Amino acid sequence: MSTNRQMILNFFMNSTGFHETAWRLPSAEPEGVTSLSLYKKMALIAEQAKFHTVFLADAYELGENVKHQALNRLEPYTLLSALAGVTERIGLVATVSTSYTEPYHTARLFASLDHLSGGRAGWNIVTTGIGKTHLNFGREQNYEHTERYQRALEFVQLATKLWDSWEDDALLFDKARGLYADVEHIHAVRHRSDIFAVEGPLNLPRPPQGYPVLAQAGSSEDGKELAARIGELIYTAQQTLADAQAFYADVKSRVEKYGRNPNEVKIVPGFSVIVGATESEAKEKEAELRESIIPELGLHRLSKRLKVDLFSYPLDGPVPELPDPATINENRSRFELMKNMIESEKLTIRQLIERVSGGNGHRTFAGTAEKVADELESWFTGGACDGFVIRPQALPSGLEDFARLVVPELQRRGLFHTEYRGTTLRENLGLARPNNQFSAQSQQRKGVQLA
Amino acid sequence: MSTNRQMILNFFMNSTGFHETAWRLPSAEPEGVTSLSLYKKMALIAEQAKFHTVFLADAYELGENVKHQALNRLEPYTLLSALAGVTERIGLVATVSTSYTEPYHTARLFASLDHLSGGRAGWNIVTTGIGKTHLNFGREQNYEHTERYQRALEFVQLATKLWDSWEDDALLFDKARGLYADVEHIHAVRHRSDIFAVEGPLNLPRPPQGYPVLAQAGSSEDGKELAARIGELIYTAQQTLADAQAFYADVKSRVEKYGRNPNEVKIVPGFSVIVGATESEAKEKEAELRESIIPELGLHRLSKRLKVDLFSYPLDGPVPELPDPATINENRSRFELMKNMIESEKLTIRQLIERVSGGNGHRTFAGTAEKVADELESWFTGGACDGFVIRPQALPSGLEDFARLVVPELQRRGLFHTEYRGTTLRENLGLARPNNQFSAQSQQRKGVQLA
Repeated sequence: MSTNRQMILNFFMNSTGFHETAWRLPSAEPEGVTSLSLYKKMALIAEQAKFHTVFLADAYELGENVKHQALNRLEPYTLLSALAGVTERIGLVATVSTSYTEPYHTARLFASLDHLSGGRAGWNIVTTGIGKTHLNFGREQNYEHTERYQRALEFVQLATKLWDSWEDDALLFDKARGLYADVEHIHAVRHRSDIFAVEGPLNLPRPPQGYPVLAQAGSSEDGKELAARIGELIYTAQQTLADAQAFYADVKSRVEKYGRNPNEVKIVPGFSVIVGATESEAKEKEAELRESIIPELGLHRLSKRLKVDLFSYPLDGPVPELPDPATINENRSRFELMKNMIESEKLTIRQLIERVSGGNGHRTFAGTAEKVADELESWFTGGACDGFVIRPQALPSGLEDFARLVVPELQRRGLFHTEYRGTTLRENLGLARPNNQFSAQSQQRKGVQLA
Repeated sequence: MSTNRQMILNFFMNSTGFHETAWRLPSAEPEGVTSLSLYKKMALIAEQAKFHTVFLADAYELGENVKHQALNRLEPYTLLSALAGVTERIGLVATVSTSYTEPYHTARLFASLDHLSGGRAGWNIVTTGIGKTHLNFGREQNYEHTERYQRALEFVQLATKLWDSWEDDALLFDKARGLYADVEHIHAVRHRSDIFAVEGPLNLPRPPQGYPVLAQAGSSEDGKELAARIGELIYTAQQTLADAQAFYADVKSRVEKYGRNPNEVKIVPGFSVIVGATESEAKEKEAELRESIIPELGLHRLSKRLKVDLFSYPLDGPVPELPDPATINENRSRFELMKNMIESEKLTIRQLIERVSGGNGHRTFAGTAEKVADELESWFTGGACDGFVIRPQALPSGLEDFARLVVPELQRRGLFHTEYRGTTLRENLGLARPNNQFSAQSQQRKGVQLA
């Protein structure tokens, strides 16, 4: 174990936890979904424990499971803006889809959040290809897979131009001469393509971090390519150490292919965790969550995801044969992961529901702090990751357990920092502040003028 | 003076004040434009003084004046979300344009802000027809005037459907039976027109206020019609008591025409103010601001607004003849107001610059707390308004002066509350919580079933 290399821990936050019926536990606060106080409490616990980030998923439709499943969140960007005012050091990572937003608005929102938080913003870049989201935005269909990723790449590249449209020295604040900004150092972006036309410049100075940290979560071929080109914090679902090692090596080599430094890309698999003070307490908590399961909810969700009507098969019989992954347009990599898991573990439908209720395809684990730390250590030192996205199966209790029991154990082993390294999220993650593409051009221009 | 009727005071917030070169004053903090601490300080002063709202304007382009003029703000929605976490009672009104956003996103953002703030959100509904905003959103031109207002009305009506898509009793939180929500009380909105197609429902429960308070600021014919149909807090620029009285009577009568209660629509003209402890101190502050003026900035801004190249006329000569208002597509009512002011007061170009530098077309006034209170009282009791949008010409100093000197004077006269009446913005403004259009339908359905 190197004492220099320490793991990145992200707290994946929602209202009641990542086991899909954890809201039924006595300790859950399902009413808290709309209340700042619940999220504020959790953000402060996570910051006290030195988590690098609070990380929020998102969706632009209600979905169909609200009869039996708690709503997960408020709009993440609002929530993280509110939390920016009551936290000081923890990173704030919001998911925003490139499929249904405008580059000018999205670049501006993240610039604002980065300014407000003193350089703690992160953008989890996703594409939206599932469900009925398109119907909330006047489209007949969701974007097709390849088109989604083309749009995503161009969207992010355009956003970086907007963030760079103010050079770092553009602001003058010269009261005596009446010069607020040096307009020679503020640039139109003049982006024009078949997808986007944006003139710019942005109406805000460059964010403190240059760009917000760019997180990304696609694990498909297109997703890995996007990660390799623009991702800095890569969230992924991996069930086994071997799969995680392969993914890690794959993405890092793609990063090198694009001329980027592999150390500037941090890979963080999800880890859906239950922590007990003792092994038996952990098993009790696991059993309590298993008992909360509503089979109808699992059957409904899995039938949609696996494209098979599981309601017509016996709950304690085997999972029926699944379609060819090539036919799946919606989150294909997660489909493949589940198909592999079902086949290698020969799961019954009930067992499958129990497996995915707690992790939604992410790795699940229940144990003492020591056992949890062992697991995290073996992946971290085994070339499988640079850290984790911690998904407590029950919230807020599971975060409290992780912060109180697991974090000190990781710190004792030298695997996790005991204090934030810097003030910005980039500093805390060990990511460089990006150069400004317009400043480089200005330098060149000056060079030409001098020559 | 009635002791029952008290005025509504909104604090119009920006970074350095509403005199366009106030950032040059020694007390200004032009660096604060990107810093939460400046806005937090002002929001807390405003809340301490019992202002009903913090009110933020917006634009989706940089504009051309940043060489000489301070940036006004961060993105308002982000900023107010951050302020929601550090304030408790003051209303939070953000400007969002219906011309360049999506109804689903905008409805969701305001629902989130209303939830997070415990029912303190307001939406200042604007349309965007000026400048080069269209070029940041892939359009060749801005929307034409009538089209903008058609889109705005339908946008707001659609947003109300989305907020209503969850009935107030839709959430069950029934842990024992595993029932989180009653899906019979959550409704698709199925909105389809030539402009928008949105299926719904929203992915958040109905906001605490039902809807955020709907503020609106158009003073054109279309603007007044929109105000009368959906506005609740009407922000307007009025130079004279007579004009303000006429506008007030006009809008209230239009409100009645649409079957609404005129008391449910509050009209609040802008008031660009300088307060001094003495008359001479007020005059000194006014002179200090006048000396900060950069004529080039005023000439540039006014030439664009008035559609005349003022650079080609002598600064101390008369304002040349202006075009027919009918030819103006961009903020025509403000154009008419300025044209009337120029003609009735026979202003030179320099005088015009001095007049608009401090108010941008809104009424300007400098004086002691007593004189300011006299002015506000005469308009309020004279049938010209229900309150004001206070635009301190210099910030943060002008807010401090107003809170320390004018607010106690208004309270002494019984014209302004000494404590917030309720916890939500609607309660504080005396606005009813709107009925849910889907609940009414549910009731009807039940009635039919029983019959």
